[in-house]
Amino acid sequence: MAKIITGKNNSKKEVILKKAATLFKTKSYNASSMRELADVVGVEAPSLYNHIGSKRELLQDICFKIGSQFTEQIEQISTSNKRTVEKIEAVIRFHIEMMAENFDEVYVANHEWKHLSEPFLTDFLNIRRNYEKSLMGFIEEGIAKNEIKAVNPYVTVLTILSAVRGLEFWQRNKKNVPLQVLENDMVNQLLYGIV
Amino acid sequence: MAKIITGKNNSKKEVILKKAATLFKTKSYNASSMRELADVVGVEAPSLYNHIGSKRELLQDICFKIGSQFTEQIEQISTSNKRTVEKIEAVIRFHIEMMAENFDEVYVANHEWKHLSEPFLTDFLNIRRNYEKSLMGFIEEGIAKNEIKAVNPYVTVLTILSAVRGLEFWQRNKKNVPLQVLENDMVNQLLYGIV
Repeated sequence: MAKIITGKNNSKKEVILKKAATLFKTKSYNASSMRELADVVGVEAPSLYNHIGSKRELLQDICFKIGSQFTEQIEQISTSNKRTVEKIEAVIRFHIEMMAENFDEVYVANHEWKHLSEPFLTDFLNIRRNYEKSLMGFIEEGIAKNEIKAVNPYVTVLTILSAVRGLEFWQRNKKNVPLQVLENDMVNQLLYGIV
Repeated sequence: MAKIITGKNNSKKEVILKKAATLFKTKSYNASSMRELADVVGVEAPSLYNHIGSKRELLQDICFKIGSQFTEQIEQISTSNKRTVEKIEAVIRFHIEMMAENFDEVYVANHEWKHLSEPFLTDFLNIRRNYEKSLMGFIEEGIAKNEIKAVNPYVTVLTILSAVRGLEFWQRNKKNVPLQVLENDMVNQLLYGIV
């Protein structure tokens, strides 16, 4: 029987999660089967179950892995000595890099979380809500410190998170624009405008 | 048999299109049936066919109606005497107002166009491509006239269109922020930044 091919820094489980994310993104979670996942991983279906529990658990693993990465990052930024504007910049750059480097997993966490079952669904929505609250906290802190304009924090966070989410469209034809140009230009527009 | 209730400025067809857009948005195009549409319109299914051809034609009507509204608007802005920055601002405001006033139809045109059949699919994608080209043309014109910074036009258009599309999330809890605050703050951030 074929072995699961792992890279230097990837466990077998990690490899399966990445392949599952690609499958769920391409076919949707609902339309994906464990048999198809076994095919793309390159093993027989029963051997998948040595590493993972079920399709449902795979979705949970993907959503909470991505949720944790964003949460840990924003907590780390929050306790850093950066100026507030630099904190907001660091958040935007992290989003863009995650969309570039872990696109399929971020896509699944953004679109397929609806299929989580309880209590995971509520937990996941709480993670997102707390994340948005932290980011709104940065905006409020920046306004209080006179580092940024007196904007509506909700609208500002909506604009930032929507813009970085738009990298979904860039992913479809990314050869046209290098990541570094995209990242710098998007950060600059969201913080300093284009005029 | 019940009559289709029309408002002052809405034809029966217009009413059906709006109800169909709400149904397609809520249930997805694929999962929606003409029987359900008849139910929400409040008539028997056969009487729907006095006004429209098929579910497929409804999707075409919605996508091309929205496509035409955006195209006509950008052509009108393009030939106006506005400064380039004002043109870009007018485009952003039009998007936000369309997301606020015709949300269900815009949502369907943004998400369900994939189910268009040929030649409509190709036509619709061409309309979108031309629209994005026109908007990139505004950015290039602004750079040439020194009205805006030397940004990458593709990234700038991606950021703008992704941000306004994010009003999908605002639609879910819009009572928190009035449209006018949202519109002004988003326009200001995209053009002048928050710092």
